[in-house]
Amino acid sequence: MAKKMKVAIFVEPGRIALDEKPIPEIGPLDALLRVTTTTICGTDVHIMKGEYPVASGLTIGHEPVGVIEKLGSAVTGYREGQRVIAGAITPSGWSNACLCGCGSQDGAGTKHGWKAIGGWKFGNTIDGCQAEYVLVPDAMANLAAVPDDLTDEEVLMCPDIMSTGFSGAERAGIQIGDSVAVFAQGPIGLCATVGAKLSGAATIIAVDRVEARFAISRKLGADHVVDFSKVDPVEEIMRITDGRGVDVAIEALGTQATFESALRVLRPGGTLSSLGVYSTDLKIPLGAFAAGLGDHTIVTSLCPGGKERMRRLMGIIQSGRVDLKPLVTHRFKLDDIVAAYDLFSHQRDGVLKVAITP
Amino acid sequence: MAKKMKVAIFVEPGRIALDEKPIPEIGPLDALLRVTTTTICGTDVHIMKGEYPVASGLTIGHEPVGVIEKLGSAVTGYREGQRVIAGAITPSGWSNACLCGCGSQDGAGTKHGWKAIGGWKFGNTIDGCQAEYVLVPDAMANLAAVPDDLTDEEVLMCPDIMSTGFSGAERAGIQIGDSVAVFAQGPIGLCATVGAKLSGAATIIAVDRVEARFAISRKLGADHVVDFSKVDPVEEIMRITDGRGVDVAIEALGTQATFESALRVLRPGGTLSSLGVYSTDLKIPLGAFAAGLGDHTIVTSLCPGGKERMRRLMGIIQSGRVDLKPLVTHRFKLDDIVAAYDLFSHQRDGVLKVAITP
Amino acid sequence: MAKKMKVAIFVEPGRIALDEKPIPEIGPLDALLRVTTTTICGTDVHIMKGEYPVASGLTIGHEPVGVIEKLGSAVTGYREGQRVIAGAITPSGWSNACLCGCGSQDGAGTKHGWKAIGGWKFGNTIDGCQAEYVLVPDAMANLAAVPDDLTDEEVLMCPDIMSTGFSGAERAGIQIGDSVAVFAQGPIGLCATVGAKLSGAATIIAVDRVEARFAISRKLGADHVVDFSKVDPVEEIMRITDGRGVDVAIEALGTQATFESALRVLRPGGTLSSLGVYSTDLKIPLGAFAAGLGDHTIVTSLCPGGKERMRRLMGIIQSGRVDLKPLVTHRFKLDDIVAAYDLFSHQRDGVLKVAITP
Amino acid sequence: MAKKMKVAIFVEPGRIALDEKPIPEIGPLDALLRVTTTTICGTDVHIMKGEYPVASGLTIGHEPVGVIEKLGSAVTGYREGQRVIAGAITPSGWSNACLCGCGSQDGAGTKHGWKAIGGWKFGNTIDGCQAEYVLVPDAMANLAAVPDDLTDEEVLMCPDIMSTGFSGAERAGIQIGDSVAVFAQGPIGLCATVGAKLSGAATIIAVDRVEARFAISRKLGADHVVDFSKVDPVEEIMRITDGRGVDVAIEALGTQATFESALRVLRPGGTLSSLGVYSTDLKIPLGAFAAGLGDHTIVTSLCPGGKERMRRLMGIIQSGRVDLKPLVTHRFKLDDIVAAYDLFSHQRDGVLKVAITP
Repeated sequence: MAKKMKVAIFVEPGRIALDEKPIPEIGPLDALLRVTTTTICGTDVHIMKGEYPVASGLTIGHEPVGVIEKLGSAVTGYREGQRVIAGAITPSGWSNACLCGCGSQDGAGTKHGWKAIGGWKFGNTIDGCQAEYVLVPDAMANLAAVPDDLTDEEVLMCPDIMSTGFSGAERAGIQIGDSVAVFAQGPIGLCATVGAKLSGAATIIAVDRVEARFAISRKLGADHVVDFSKVDPVEEIMRITDGRGVDVAIEALGTQATFESALRVLRPGGTLSSLGVYSTDLKIPLGAFAAGLGDHTIVTSLCPGGKERMRRLMGIIQSGRVDLKPLVTHRFKLDDIVAAYDLFSHQRDGVLKVAITP
Repeated sequence: MAKKMKVAIFVEPGRIALDEKPIPEIGPLDALLRVTTTTICGTDVHIMKGEYPVASGLTIGHEPVGVIEKLGSAVTGYREGQRVIAGAITPSGWSNACLCGCGSQDGAGTKHGWKAIGGWKFGNTIDGCQAEYVLVPDAMANLAAVPDDLTDEEVLMCPDIMSTGFSGAERAGIQIGDSVAVFAQGPIGLCATVGAKLSGAATIIAVDRVEARFAISRKLGADHVVDFSKVDPVEEIMRITDGRGVDVAIEALGTQATFESALRVLRPGGTLSSLGVYSTDLKIPLGAFAAGLGDHTIVTSLCPGGKERMRRLMGIIQSGRVDLKPLVTHRFKLDDIVAAYDLFSHQRDGVLKVAITP
Repeated sequence: MAKKMKVAIFVEPGRIALDEKPIPEIGPLDALLRVTTTTICGTDVHIMKGEYPVASGLTIGHEPVGVIEKLGSAVTGYREGQRVIAGAITPSGWSNACLCGCGSQDGAGTKHGWKAIGGWKFGNTIDGCQAEYVLVPDAMANLAAVPDDLTDEEVLMCPDIMSTGFSGAERAGIQIGDSVAVFAQGPIGLCATVGAKLSGAATIIAVDRVEARFAISRKLGADHVVDFSKVDPVEEIMRITDGRGVDVAIEALGTQATFESALRVLRPGGTLSSLGVYSTDLKIPLGAFAAGLGDHTIVTSLCPGGKERMRRLMGIIQSGRVDLKPLVTHRFKLDDIVAAYDLFSHQRDGVLKVAITP
Repeated sequence: MAKKMKVAIFVEPGRIALDEKPIPEIGPLDALLRVTTTTICGTDVHIMKGEYPVASGLTIGHEPVGVIEKLGSAVTGYREGQRVIAGAITPSGWSNACLCGCGSQDGAGTKHGWKAIGGWKFGNTIDGCQAEYVLVPDAMANLAAVPDDLTDEEVLMCPDIMSTGFSGAERAGIQIGDSVAVFAQGPIGLCATVGAKLSGAATIIAVDRVEARFAISRKLGADHVVDFSKVDPVEEIMRITDGRGVDVAIEALGTQATFESALRVLRPGGTLSSLGVYSTDLKIPLGAFAAGLGDHTIVTSLCPGGKERMRRLMGIIQSGRVDLKPLVTHRFKLDDIVAAYDLFSHQRDGVLKVAITP
């Protein structure tokens, strides 16, 4: 009889529960990880609320730090007991999407459906990692060894938050000297701020309304902070940029208001880089879009995954360029994950990210 | 007393009229062209209808072929009597926008207004070229000598149609082997089809409903034509691409329907390249946008201008790669321009482009 | 006792021989192909001559068309009996090199050695496909199904010649309207000419000295042919381009003379795209290099591989954009491969490529 | 009679002298600057030594900070008395080179000659700015207003050192997380180190042999310093990168040794970005070049100029991201420029850059 493990599952809109499942059998390309640390993502809250539909009973979570428990028969290059991470997105490496440089979309389903968006599998189309164990598909493409000098918490932002936030800056093609506005300063937005700083932006303007976040925004790279509950952010950004608008605007929330403001503050020829997960149709105002004649670029990004991405992100942490430890504000045992969701989803107590340890 | 010239002016919504104005005085950086051939653009029809506002009395038209009548005092490198073209968009060369590679947006006004969209000046913010004479600003950046072996009509598509249509393919970053759908096969869409072919697309799908255009679409590069009045173009394109969707979709009309269909047929990670001039807000459907997680890119382009662009476009015509002469279906004298607008705006008699000769 | 198969092996400099080996055992990620058609590459001639060292006894050849005989235990998505090709370069998909978009260099050895250059494995570091059977590593990343409407010979150029030749144009970033010179019009150079045409080059200048090749150069896209045995190719290209030089020069031979000429004909800011396999140190002349101040770019490319690349190349052949069948000038049985090498290496009888059928 | 001004001229190899010339007449597109601060470049030392030939009697120097004394008749958008800088390279804006995004090569002469390399005019093909006054060509494209809160010395590195050094990082396409080696840590190399840091490099390895420079290298972004007089820099860099090699190597000296080492430490697929001004032919060793199969990229850059570039560089200084004031180690009056050349050319007294004030 298969051994059991504790898991956090989606039950129905509004309810996440702790449950038990058998520890999974592994296929030839898989690895079984014993999860040592994981976290909760804003997307998990969307799932909990039923705003993003997944199957009832699915184990959720997509940000694993763990130890290799068992390797599939075809997996080479790793050893059991090795401490590793895997990205939230787990490209196979061998799909056509991967081989044309679009690994995040490996396994993307039909565009007309809703389920398999992008290549996001963990806690979306397969069981996730808010559990004692998690099965990592295509292990050789996805497992990245954690350097000995980094703790679990130090690499906990790599699988999703840091990879996604940075991609907002990367996909925008930020150049040295650019001005960049970042709309929303949750964990993703803060990492987008870091990404803009690392990319050479000379002026970074962070927009949010949570006073407590502005200090960390500034610490991570923002030159200006704009409280949209107090001033019109579009006017304020136009003022800061002497009417020029920004070269790049990063959307890091997933709402019409932030998307639209991001478009309105762009200079002609500028780029809107969107990271948010939207839950409604979007409107593009004619004027802000210059009637289609503004040489604008709008890009969306799904969190880049794969072991090379993880290796590079951990390298940045090792270099000391960035310190994301302040993002982990609370710690919970897996047994208490329902309480963790409660805190995190209500954004109580200044929470940014929680560390969950099984 | 200044000599007079005939001009076509915008009077009020619904009315273009032939009028007279003094031949303009030239400034040190300008050139005065005696227009030998010009044409009417779909955008001019928008102006005539009042859908795109310009000042009453403005001379319209932005596609000049002509002969240099007079050169500004600071202009070197040209001689009077030389046959030249200038692009629809006339970058100064020396503006900050030009110097950062965004010359089409040189002179773009406030994004919140409507008047000065992009760097489009001729027939928008300054007098245009549906006239006997036209003043070309920043002549050294904009006048391109026409090779002797090319006729006026052979280069008549360069200033706008060809430059804009090609930019739809160029801005999309088409790779050899890509599949590309082009929505609408008016003159711009046809040139986008040509641009996709020149960029190495292996499968080009042209969408329109005017049966007569499909023959020219095929001749200019389309592998498949889709009549959207007979089949659902999204379903048909998904069928043609075996459910994969296209790598690139080019929008060449400026409507919600074409924009939305272009988004729906994109593969995950694909690019929507928009050329149309819109006249309403746009809606981005959530599903087609993969909730923001599809690694999509949306780009808009304004017709690239400047003498180097013109030189290269004329070089392509000289090479024999492309024959756009079939696009000129009708010819009018400037005196008859009101009749030309009537024909062109009602798309009668299979008209694609008209040649106007003062 | 393992069944035997016929193979062509490298014996010692100057000698290729037909031999027998056991049909190989397959690992979990491999596929065993029964080779139906293959060919000889210029690089194989380098190997034969001892100019490019491989182990004695190695089966050579890296351009397989075949039928799946057996699939590894972890391989899914294919069926035995399926007709497929694999690229000359066989990226794993899961390596760090692959995951950062540099799949051709997957498995590249130390740069100081000579053996494992790039990710080239077939007939270099593992047994190749001039044999009755060949083992394809990382089958899921490498096997591309051949469409039913394409013959073996029609896809025979995909694994190397077409992929390499096209990459010369792709890596150079050719823009619509560019002028391009291609130095040498062997099979690779001819495919570079095709690649330049597909990329929108307006002027393609092909350089060689074999009169017979000029007709095919012209047919595949060259606007001008230059016989370097009769005129100085640098002077002639400067003349053709009115002293401007070319935007892109593609080197497709691998000699100092062609590399240097390619650099000399570049316009300031132009790109030299090098495809040749060199066998000596190269010299960069100071003047041609503008003392390092010319904003030049020099790129080298190793044949892109992987199933997506193969799928796209076959798609181009299906589209009818390109007809490379004229490149197959001779046909041999595997039993006669020594004669085929003799013909091919001496470039007798107007040979371009030979088809070898086991 | 024209008023006279003091100038530093090249007399003959080995000799720079202070002299007098008439203050120049200005043309319609020019501006006359009264120079307030300038500096000496390594290239000026090449000129002085006769290693880079210029006309005898030419005023040298190409890094001006000054005040507008007089504006040409066609120049608008500036006022006399305004404090400005101009880049070392002065693109016209209106040339074909500028209009295709290659402004640094505007005016580049024949590639076979030596004189007009790139678009470098000041102190190369026209009189330079080691003088009381300097004529700036194409003023509207080149004059950038200095923000009031920046001193002359704070912006003195913008015209050349910072623009060139940064371009080494920019042209290499450094990605967040890259490892970068910078060969030589003179002023240009130090700015390349800064540029690599601003571009998100996670590991920066600076190579030089002047112990005193290592402290500033570290301060400006180097994670590792390698003294090539004590260790083999190739071996040391391979050790630091665990045998992987670097993603990008920047050459900032202009010698065979540094060029070759830069190539040897590249990972397969890596980029060599060359900034140095060479004075001899270069050799590319076959092994380091992977016989042409390494997917390498080699780029050279000439200092980007133009007012938008200057505006952005000054913006970076204003942002506080970078403090280059420590590079100005010595100060001289124009009257003492011969002494300044003596100090600078012999690299005495820890000199990095000198400020010259007329």
